[in-house]
Amino acid sequence: MQLITTTQDLRAAIGVPRGTTFVPTMGALHEGHASLVRQASGHARAHKLRHSVVSIFVNPTQFNDATDLDRYPRTLDADLALCERAGATIVFVPEVNEVYPNVPQNGAAVQALILPEVAYLPKLEDAHRPGHFAGVCQVVARLFELVQPAASFFGEKDWQQLQVIRTMTKLLDLPVEIIAGITIREADGLAMSSRNRFLSSEERANALAISRALRKASTHDSFLSAEEAMREVLLSAGAAIDYAVIRDAETLMRFIPGRPGRAIITARFGKIRLLDNTAWGA
Amino acid sequence: MQLITTTQDLRAAIGVPRGTTFVPTMGALHEGHASLVRQASGHARAHKLRHSVVSIFVNPTQFNDATDLDRYPRTLDADLALCERAGATIVFVPEVNEVYPNVPQNGAAVQALILPEVAYLPKLEDAHRPGHFAGVCQVVARLFELVQPAASFFGEKDWQQLQVIRTMTKLLDLPVEIIAGITIREADGLAMSSRNRFLSSEERANALAISRALRKASTHDSFLSAEEAMREVLLSAGAAIDYAVIRDAETLMRFIPGRPGRAIITARFGKIRLLDNTAWGA
Repeated sequence: MQLITTTQDLRAAIGVPRGTTFVPTMGALHEGHASLVRQASGHARAHKLRHSVVSIFVNPTQFNDATDLDRYPRTLDADLALCERAGATIVFVPEVNEVYPNVPQNGAAVQALILPEVAYLPKLEDAHRPGHFAGVCQVVARLFELVQPAASFFGEKDWQQLQVIRTMTKLLDLPVEIIAGITIREADGLAMSSRNRFLSSEERANALAISRALRKASTHDSFLSAEEAMREVLLSAGAAIDYAVIRDAETLMRFIPGRPGRAIITARFGKIRLLDNTAWGA
Repeated sequence: MQLITTTQDLRAAIGVPRGTTFVPTMGALHEGHASLVRQASGHARAHKLRHSVVSIFVNPTQFNDATDLDRYPRTLDADLALCERAGATIVFVPEVNEVYPNVPQNGAAVQALILPEVAYLPKLEDAHRPGHFAGVCQVVARLFELVQPAASFFGEKDWQQLQVIRTMTKLLDLPVEIIAGITIREADGLAMSSRNRFLSSEERANALAISRALRKASTHDSFLSAEEAMREVLLSAGAAIDYAVIRDAETLMRFIPGRPGRAIITARFGKIRLLDNTAWGA
C-alpha cells in the first residue's frame, strides 16, 4: 500500500494519462481556427499524444441574446474539412443534451453550475454581455471534464476569454496546459472572425479602423493618450465603440506602468460586433 | 479523423481508463469504513481495476463550526493500518493546500466554488449545518477530479450525504458509479461512528434509543405515527432531537405512499450528535 500526500504524486500513481490536445470551438471555422488546430496537432505529435480533439458546439449558455444564438453561423461540412486538413484526429459535435444531459436548460439552472468567482471577475465584457463568461467557464470546464486534455488551445483574439480560462484553470487546479494561439489576420489587417462574413463591403472597409487604431496606440507612450488615439481612429470610421482601452494584460484591470499592457477594442460596425487586441507598452 | 457526437463515444475514443475505486473519508476510521474499503477493494479486483484508493482528509469547508473541526479526531497510524488490512492500494493524505491550492480559504472563496443547485437542495441537515453539503460537494467533486475513480463508495449511515452525492454526480454527468455501503453496527445496534468514542457510558447507553426508535418506526403503517413513535422513544432516553422523520428515500422531501421511504434520525446525547436511518414502508 502506498501513502501519498501530494496531488502530483497521486496523479502519477493513478496513472491516468492525458493523451490528447484540445481546441474547443463554436464552429464557423476560419483560418484563425485552422492555425489553432495545426498548433494543437503539432503539439500532440511533438508530445506523442494519441489524439488531437476539436469540439464544435454552439454553447447556448454563453449567449445572453437569443437572436445572436439563432443567427450564429453553422457550416459543419466546411468545418469538418478544415479540421481534417489541419490534422485533428477527433471532431466532437454534440447536441446540447449531450453536453448538459441532466441540467434543465433554463437560466436559473445554468447559473447554478457556473463558478461566480471566476466568471464575474470584472472583465470589460461583463458590462456588455452579462453572464457571457459564466457560460464560457461552464462549457469549457465541462468539455475539459469530457476530453481530459493535456493541453488546450485558445486564440488571442478573444484576449479576455483567454485570461478567464487561465484563471478558472488555476482556481480549479486542473491539470491542463492553456496555450495561446496568435491572432490570424486578413492581408489588410482585419482579424479573422466568423462574423466578418456578415459585414457589408462598406462596413468591411470601415472595420479596418480597428487594426489601424491598435497600431496607432503603439505610437503613444501614455496609456491615456493611446486610448484617446484609438477612440479617434474608430469614431472617424463610424464605429460604435463598446470599449477601446489599455489594460493590464493579465488582470484586465487598470494599466500599471512597468507591467505588460494590452490594447483592447470591441466595436460595432452596423450590427456586427468585432473584437481585436494587441500587446501595448514597453 | 473520427466524427463523434455522443459523450459516451467520446470517452471511449479518448480512451482514458478509470482504473480505480475510491473511498473518501475524514479519517478516524472504524469498522464501518473498513467494510466500505473491503467492498471497494473487492470491486476493484472483480473489475480488474488497478487501484483501490482511500483518501483521509478532514475537509475544512464542510465544517460550519470551527470547534467541531478542531476536535475532529485524528488517528492516522491506526487509519493506515486499517486501510492496509482492508485491501487499499493507495491512501491519499493531503494537506489543505494540496486540495485547494489556489483558492483562499475564507468563506467567500469557498462559497464561490460550490454548486448551489446541488448543495442547497432542501435536505434536512441544511437547517442544522448550513453550508455543510456545499462543502461536501466541493471536496468530493475535487477528489473525483484528482482520483478519476470508476466507482466511489459512500456509507448509508449518512443517507442525506449519499443522496446529495448521487444528485451532484448526475447533474455534473460524471462517469463515476456511486455505490452505497450498508451501515455497520455495534453488537447492541449502535451505528458505528467516529464520534461514539466521545460518549460517556451513560450517553452510550441512552444512544441505543436511536436504533430502537428506528425499529419501532417499522411497526407503524402511517408515517405520522411512525414519526411520533420515534420521537417518543428518543425523548424518553433524554435525547435532544434535531429531526426524527420519515421522508422520501431519494428526494428526502415529504414521504409519498407507494415510493420508498426512509426513517432518518439525528439526535444529540450530551454534546455528541449522532445520525442513523433505515428503510421504511412497504
